[in-house]
Amino acid sequence: MKDDTVQTSDALQHQFPLEGWGITENQLDDWHHLLSETLFALGNGYIGLRGTAEEGNQRTAADSLNGSYLNGFYESESIQYPENAYGLARTNQFMLNVPNAKCLTLMLEDETFDLQQGRVDSYQRHLDFRTGLLTRTLQWTSDQGRSLRLHSQRLVSFENKHVYAMSYEVTPLNFSGEIKLLSAIDAAVKNITAGDDPRVGSAISGPVLHKLEVKQENDISAFLHRTHNSGLSLATAMQNHLQTESSYTSSLQQGDDKLEQQFTIRAVQGQIIKLDKFCSYFSSRDYPAASLLSLSQQALGKVREQGFAQLAASQQAYLADFWAQADVHISGDAALQQGIRFNMFHLLQSVGRDGKTNIAAKGLTGEGYEGHYFWDTEIYIFPFFLYNKPEIARKLLEYRYQYLPQARERARQMSHASGALYPWRTIDGEECSAYFPAGTAQYHINADIAYSIKLYMDATADMDFLLTQGAEIVLETARLWMGLGHYTRLPGHDTDSFCINEVTGPDEYTAQVNNNYYTNAMAQMHLRFAADIVRQLQAEHTEQFAELAAKIHLQADEANAWQRAADLMALPYNKERGIHEQDDSFLNKKVWDFANTPKENYPLLLNYHPLVIYRHQVCKQADVVLALLLLSDQFSLDDKRRDFDFYEKVTTHDSSLSTCIFSIIAAEVGYQDKAYDYFMQTARLDLDNTHGNTHYGVHTAAMGGTWLGIAYGFAGMRIKKGQLSFAPVLPVQWQDYQFRVHFQGQLLEITVNQTHVEYRLLRGTALQFQHRGQSLQVTEQQAICKISLHQAELIHA
Amino acid sequence: MKDDTVQTSDALQHQFPLEGWGITENQLDDWHHLLSETLFALGNGYIGLRGTAEEGNQRTAADSLNGSYLNGFYESESIQYPENAYGLARTNQFMLNVPNAKCLTLMLEDETFDLQQGRVDSYQRHLDFRTGLLTRTLQWTSDQGRSLRLHSQRLVSFENKHVYAMSYEVTPLNFSGEIKLLSAIDAAVKNITAGDDPRVGSAISGPVLHKLEVKQENDISAFLHRTHNSGLSLATAMQNHLQTESSYTSSLQQGDDKLEQQFTIRAVQGQIIKLDKFCSYFSSRDYPAASLLSLSQQALGKVREQGFAQLAASQQAYLADFWAQADVHISGDAALQQGIRFNMFHLLQSVGRDGKTNIAAKGLTGEGYEGHYFWDTEIYIFPFFLYNKPEIARKLLEYRYQYLPQARERARQMSHASGALYPWRTIDGEECSAYFPAGTAQYHINADIAYSIKLYMDATADMDFLLTQGAEIVLETARLWMGLGHYTRLPGHDTDSFCINEVTGPDEYTAQVNNNYYTNAMAQMHLRFAADIVRQLQAEHTEQFAELAAKIHLQADEANAWQRAADLMALPYNKERGIHEQDDSFLNKKVWDFANTPKENYPLLLNYHPLVIYRHQVCKQADVVLALLLLSDQFSLDDKRRDFDFYEKVTTHDSSLSTCIFSIIAAEVGYQDKAYDYFMQTARLDLDNTHGNTHYGVHTAAMGGTWLGIAYGFAGMRIKKGQLSFAPVLPVQWQDYQFRVHFQGQLLEITVNQTHVEYRLLRGTALQFQHRGQSLQVTEQQAICKISLHQAELIHA
Repeated sequence: MKDDTVQTSDALQHQFPLEGWGITENQLDDWHHLLSETLFALGNGYIGLRGTAEEGNQRTAADSLNGSYLNGFYESESIQYPENAYGLARTNQFMLNVPNAKCLTLMLEDETFDLQQGRVDSYQRHLDFRTGLLTRTLQWTSDQGRSLRLHSQRLVSFENKHVYAMSYEVTPLNFSGEIKLLSAIDAAVKNITAGDDPRVGSAISGPVLHKLEVKQENDISAFLHRTHNSGLSLATAMQNHLQTESSYTSSLQQGDDKLEQQFTIRAVQGQIIKLDKFCSYFSSRDYPAASLLSLSQQALGKVREQGFAQLAASQQAYLADFWAQADVHISGDAALQQGIRFNMFHLLQSVGRDGKTNIAAKGLTGEGYEGHYFWDTEIYIFPFFLYNKPEIARKLLEYRYQYLPQARERARQMSHASGALYPWRTIDGEECSAYFPAGTAQYHINADIAYSIKLYMDATADMDFLLTQGAEIVLETARLWMGLGHYTRLPGHDTDSFCINEVTGPDEYTAQVNNNYYTNAMAQMHLRFAADIVRQLQAEHTEQFAELAAKIHLQADEANAWQRAADLMALPYNKERGIHEQDDSFLNKKVWDFANTPKENYPLLLNYHPLVIYRHQVCKQADVVLALLLLSDQFSLDDKRRDFDFYEKVTTHDSSLSTCIFSIIAAEVGYQDKAYDYFMQTARLDLDNTHGNTHYGVHTAAMGGTWLGIAYGFAGMRIKKGQLSFAPVLPVQWQDYQFRVHFQGQLLEITVNQTHVEYRLLRGTALQFQHRGQSLQVTEQQAICKISLHQAELIHA
Repeated sequence: MKDDTVQTSDALQHQFPLEGWGITENQLDDWHHLLSETLFALGNGYIGLRGTAEEGNQRTAADSLNGSYLNGFYESESIQYPENAYGLARTNQFMLNVPNAKCLTLMLEDETFDLQQGRVDSYQRHLDFRTGLLTRTLQWTSDQGRSLRLHSQRLVSFENKHVYAMSYEVTPLNFSGEIKLLSAIDAAVKNITAGDDPRVGSAISGPVLHKLEVKQENDISAFLHRTHNSGLSLATAMQNHLQTESSYTSSLQQGDDKLEQQFTIRAVQGQIIKLDKFCSYFSSRDYPAASLLSLSQQALGKVREQGFAQLAASQQAYLADFWAQADVHISGDAALQQGIRFNMFHLLQSVGRDGKTNIAAKGLTGEGYEGHYFWDTEIYIFPFFLYNKPEIARKLLEYRYQYLPQARERARQMSHASGALYPWRTIDGEECSAYFPAGTAQYHINADIAYSIKLYMDATADMDFLLTQGAEIVLETARLWMGLGHYTRLPGHDTDSFCINEVTGPDEYTAQVNNNYYTNAMAQMHLRFAADIVRQLQAEHTEQFAELAAKIHLQADEANAWQRAADLMALPYNKERGIHEQDDSFLNKKVWDFANTPKENYPLLLNYHPLVIYRHQVCKQADVVLALLLLSDQFSLDDKRRDFDFYEKVTTHDSSLSTCIFSIIAAEVGYQDKAYDYFMQTARLDLDNTHGNTHYGVHTAAMGGTWLGIAYGFAGMRIKKGQLSFAPVLPVQWQDYQFRVHFQGQLLEITVNQTHVEYRLLRGTALQFQHRGQSLQVTEQQAICKISLHQAELIHA
């Protein structure tokens, strides 16, 4: 069960001034460390650093989590069940809190700089989405009256995934004397323990990282560690570069869990002391363990040569390019504008892009869900990258291909003689869900992955990917449905249907059902897609297809069997009510007594036994409603409206994956107020901490869902017969909005204002697309196409 | 999940000579300690002692479990879930291995008597069902050539639940010299740990029992301990009484975990040395903790005065009375005769009879299922006591009444505003099932308990029980169905049905379904019974009813609501096939591929993920078929035959609760060979260790099922309109069989031979009953009624 749920009890919030390109904290906030550390986190898809200050947080541990994470770098532990059963996930993997290399301790004579002591004269912290810098500027006076100015900057390099850097400037304002700067790597770090909260990290006690080697020479200090169970090695290194006109000495210190370089400076009042610190992580997931220390040295040598300013310039250039391709602009709603860019910035910071890593439910910003990857990637986040940075989208698919062998192995464990079953939650490809009713039972993960490959092929026509990886994934996962489902005559039917029993759909408030609509409809799409691929490759890439068929022992009749199962797929529909049934029995369950459920009893899962929830007609999140979006073509607008009306009444949105989908369908069926309300609940979910658990990390799926809300929702973007299609509306709260879409190598900008829609080809030669069913074109020559917003507009009250 | 399943892999067996009234081991068996310790266990429903020798077993711990248990005396521990959820069982309770007071060490000069050393010259161990004595007679020669004869006897008193006693006679055969007898209480005992096996005990590490006090004076030694978590206190005491013509000295020793009395004897060749040892347990579950030591002293003083011989005589008298009431006699099948008596003897030894304890799934013979009580009691074991020792049957019901407050509390946890929900497995009334799909989801436990109360009332007309306890249980548990179920229009129905969703029936290979036939049919019976009680008490016991109604806040319209729900209960039936459907979706599931399931893949639950099993049409045990028995009147013989035919094909009998029920229905529908085969699989289940796990304890439900197989099965006994009814058949393998039934204060003996059935009134004034629908009577005056076996006999091939 993924209980990424609203915490109604005294959810902490952190109020930021509204601004377009960043978040700023203008006052030291002593009480929201855990929350602000998440919001001010930096990352590059590989390294993630929570926004803890360099000098740490000297308050109690519960207030702060000084987390440093590496995407895909995990420790494993055996899962203990109070009652065991065959085939349950055996080993958990969790994203490890790795040695903290950003430690800086500042001493003024015998006093230690500590914002919780002395007096803070001025303070500002700023995270800038365009520079990628986390900056802190403050003035502080110690208990003994020494005043200093501090200006620190930090970045995690987008250019070089192994590197991050800091610049730390101290100016003594009213004194001269000895200043010490202690720059350290602290390896005495731990993951937080879970207690009863399933949303946070694992409860391994005892040390996880074992020291293998230490290197300290010149200005470089480095640890080499190995994890206890997963057997992964990691080099953590730092290089310090002090710039000052004052005289100083430097020395190296070594402790069991600490490597330190101490600078003792004869500081002069008014003279800036500047320490640039460069840090790196190299792990055996990328390189042989024996080479990690020397790789660290080389990398640090290189960035030291570049210097902090050069790294900052590269960072800014990378982001300039990103925003040029991906920015979403909204006029008239500053809060939303900030939320959307915050979300996109964090997505970029969180996403793995090396084909070996993916994007965790909480990105690299916290330990919620233990750094696991879910279907969130394919259904909620993948489209954002596909249409904005398609090269990253491909890497996300390559990750799935990388772990196809484990998915095959899991299928065998689940007694399937052929095919592959992807894990519900994982880091390294193994099933890590310890609650199968809302884990392994969510077989739809297979179709979700196939769906994202279909989306990818539509948007990129990347045959190389299909031939080398994509087809193999789609075919192997399609096979699983054949073993999972079977033909039977359902009550009230005249013919046999292909039925899929004992699965859980997206809605985790309904578990282990028969013929979950979403699952079956997505399986139908999946089986047809797989059969299409077979036909296409057989015809057009005969030789490569033969190789693939041989590799996976594909039988001649399999594609036909897939087609038949798809054609006869059971898709529960209630004729009387004209709605799609979430599963065979959903409509026969008792409707949840919403009227008598007090507000504090939400999220339901924290207040009712699973059996009580499962027994009722109540949804945690979009299920049929998600199918209405993903398989949009298969439903009439009336269908969609009836389904929306019905499921809205029984959905709690206790999951953060829900409101964005409801917003999109509301926009489509003409419920503009609802579309806007649901969208607002998604777009500032983390910035306003509306689910009350952002301190465990950001909600990357909702962040992806924000972009979907703009593109799929308000702009009505769909893929129809391989073409982009739009049906834009403009919320009354906005003056205009603008976003961009990469499609088949071209870049289209869509601007919607109160009267017009403007389609502009920013890159490429020519693009055909549809606007409310009307075929339009932009070309290099005629790059702009303007059309009245309300033309052919269908709005249903 | 209760995985009391067949172990196909090298199941150990222990071959005993066939005899009518006991089991005998004629050769020391070094390899089956764990198994024989279970089979030779002694108990009195309160104390249970595994059949370990007094001197223990010096081999590795894996070979032996020197277990001493007290019914209802438990330690508790918090249950840790890898993914937590609201309302899951929080605390496990497990039957504690308590201090071992039967330790005797025998030394011959510098040699220790140890059957794994030296030479065993002769050996016999015998458990006698008529005397209740476990006797060991052997002759042994030490490595240095000293020979001795040993004759030991042990009993656990049926008269005084707190006491057990041993008599230990040693005769030096070829030497005179110093013999030491060290008689001890060993408190350094531990429960076995589970590892991955859900059938055995808990994995608490560290000491559970904390020593509070020690008392050693005269010949009495006693410990007072308290458990760490459950806070229960226990006094363990012993008193030794040495009888010898030789001179001896005695001394007392005290260790941290051991109290010992040492006898040093100047033994003379040929002279018997006899030590009588009396032991007792008193716990704070029965008495104030402060009184336990003095109670122990008093009890031991009394039995010491009686002496072992007197205790043995009482024991024999108690058993003579038991067998006079309860014996089942079979001619022509010695193996079966032995198995049946073995089972009845162990049932008597296992059953709690103080109203505070019940009968555990493994009795008091081992740590399987941690000493928990299940529905096994009411459905499989209760009838044996009801018809053979009704006073014990009442005590079993009183146990449920004792824990009605906890059942109410559990109902609140499960979000029911009123009513009571009994735990699926428990010792002290709290839900201990850590796997809710096959635990709490088995709501039928409520109806099972109500059913046993109905059975009890039919057989005893004990209005005192109904008025003071029974009605309150039935009404409170009936209420739960109203909160659990609801009215809805099922597909293909013209009217609303009362539906019960998201439950698990008896068959644990199908979980969390809608309208499980067994559950709904039993709920229907339960609701009608509850409504009947309300009507009856209102009319006949107005005042007491008013008190009860006030106590449980019974509303005026509740009984009518129960009646209506019962009348409109959804009872899935397939008209085309003419069979009752196990649940709404059972027939639409894929049939398990039995043809391609290798023998070693049974039991399925040890070889397939629960989702794989749940997805298929496959049963672990009788489900609908059990309803055919319990609600016999509601089904025609044709119904029963069709259901039997259908469910037999898809049932694996992986549960030990299955074959006895299939045997009974097979007998009823005329499948005599099958009836016999299934019965044989039940009757010697433990003696032949056919499920391969008897080393963890006997299977009390199957033991109860054995008696059901005779009475309900071959004799076709049912209650019809409050009367006993029979329809006997005789398996061709037998000459005759005989059993007895207590009914409404009278005792009837039924003898079936190849030509006749003889009904004989052994006690009472007059009894009307039916024989194949024919009304018959026996009276004090005309005590015998003979009738042709085949008269009106309906046998369907």
